[in-house]
Amino acid sequence: MSDVRIIEIKQSVFADNDREADRLRSELKGKRTFLLNLMSSPGSGKTTTLQQTVARLKDEMKIGVMEADIDSSVDAEKMAKTGVRSIQLHTGGMCHLDAGMTEQGLKEIGVDDLDLVVLENVGNLVCPAEFDTGAARNAMILSVPEGHDKPLKYPLIFTVCDALIINKIDVLPYFDFDMDKVVEYAHMRNPKLKIFPICAKTGEGVDAWCDWLREQVRSWNER
Amino acid sequence: MSDVRIIEIKQSVFADNDREADRLRSELKGKRTFLLNLMSSPGSGKTTTLQQTVARLKDEMKIGVMEADIDSSVDAEKMAKTGVRSIQLHTGGMCHLDAGMTEQGLKEIGVDDLDLVVLENVGNLVCPAEFDTGAARNAMILSVPEGHDKPLKYPLIFTVCDALIINKIDVLPYFDFDMDKVVEYAHMRNPKLKIFPICAKTGEGVDAWCDWLREQVRSWNER
Repeated sequence: MSDVRIIEIKQSVFADNDREADRLRSELKGKRTFLLNLMSSPGSGKTTTLQQTVARLKDEMKIGVMEADIDSSVDAEKMAKTGVRSIQLHTGGMCHLDAGMTEQGLKEIGVDDLDLVVLENVGNLVCPAEFDTGAARNAMILSVPEGHDKPLKYPLIFTVCDALIINKIDVLPYFDFDMDKVVEYAHMRNPKLKIFPICAKTGEGVDAWCDWLREQVRSWNER
Repeated sequence: MSDVRIIEIKQSVFADNDREADRLRSELKGKRTFLLNLMSSPGSGKTTTLQQTVARLKDEMKIGVMEADIDSSVDAEKMAKTGVRSIQLHTGGMCHLDAGMTEQGLKEIGVDDLDLVVLENVGNLVCPAEFDTGAARNAMILSVPEGHDKPLKYPLIFTVCDALIINKIDVLPYFDFDMDKVVEYAHMRNPKLKIFPICAKTGEGVDAWCDWLREQVRSWNER
């Protein structure tokens, strides 16, 4: 059906996830590998956003993508077509990835020659926000059809992220989505949050997001 | 700010959730109260669907709605305007409700005179599916912008539900959503799943969903 490599990851045994995450982050820093943890609801456009991101950055840096899902290999198949190294992680029903689970994936994909690894987390606005994966930066996507009230209902994820991508701006005319309000609510949760309105389908706005990501990777990876 | 009643529910202490759920279901059966557990991703339109549902059924039966969220009382305020009894449950960060947590809500709303209670679960396709709430029936909403591949990625929720509402069919022209495929994938997970394509914003298709729900409530509540 597909030649994508699927890794069945196991639940972690570490009691102290924060400590494991810090250790993993230091190791990745030493190897000059930037890990981005990308989170969102199901269907907000993580994979399409990554396809656009990879197309813009793959000639400047070596990129790997880990697609985490409970089941299927739909996303890793899509990413493989972009020409970057990609693997599918199956979480065995788990609703999130912690540092130990992320590390299992990193070992499988092999990070020594990679400048940027993106972890596409399980589609979920709640649980992934509670577990530090060891990433250098956290980013999330909120799509227009989900509504502008999400920072009110799911506070934590907006607090732990460095960047918020607002996707599907092409359908703004068809939804009651107030861009000013979502920015206000998101900054109420996290005043430092960088916000990038984009349309991953057409590529609109993706350059600004990639400029930010490129700068983060560069400053993380320089000696 | 609002006069909606907000209940802070506590994590359950029961080791055996399935047994607690069965006990709660029997009690509700004895009281002739039908509990519907409504699940979906964040922003798929649970509250708007409930507003349309309540408008069609409230003259035939007494209805209560419990809105579960991690934070905010946005949804309970909207439901209160429909004229049915509603309360907001705050889950203290929890990503789902189990039977014990549901029972705390039911005690607060008071079910003795209610024919139908709807639990609007936390927006999440993963964790809520793992916990039996004691509901008579489970239903879920998948909205068109989320994509037709969701039954492949989030198998369990499609397996445990009796009905699948496909919402936001008004925006079908603007998304790559294949209705035949989603029906095929959903029935692959659960051949008995009833599927109702609707537009909660305009009310299109909502009558068929309400006909099904009315029949379920009637047969559950009859002596």
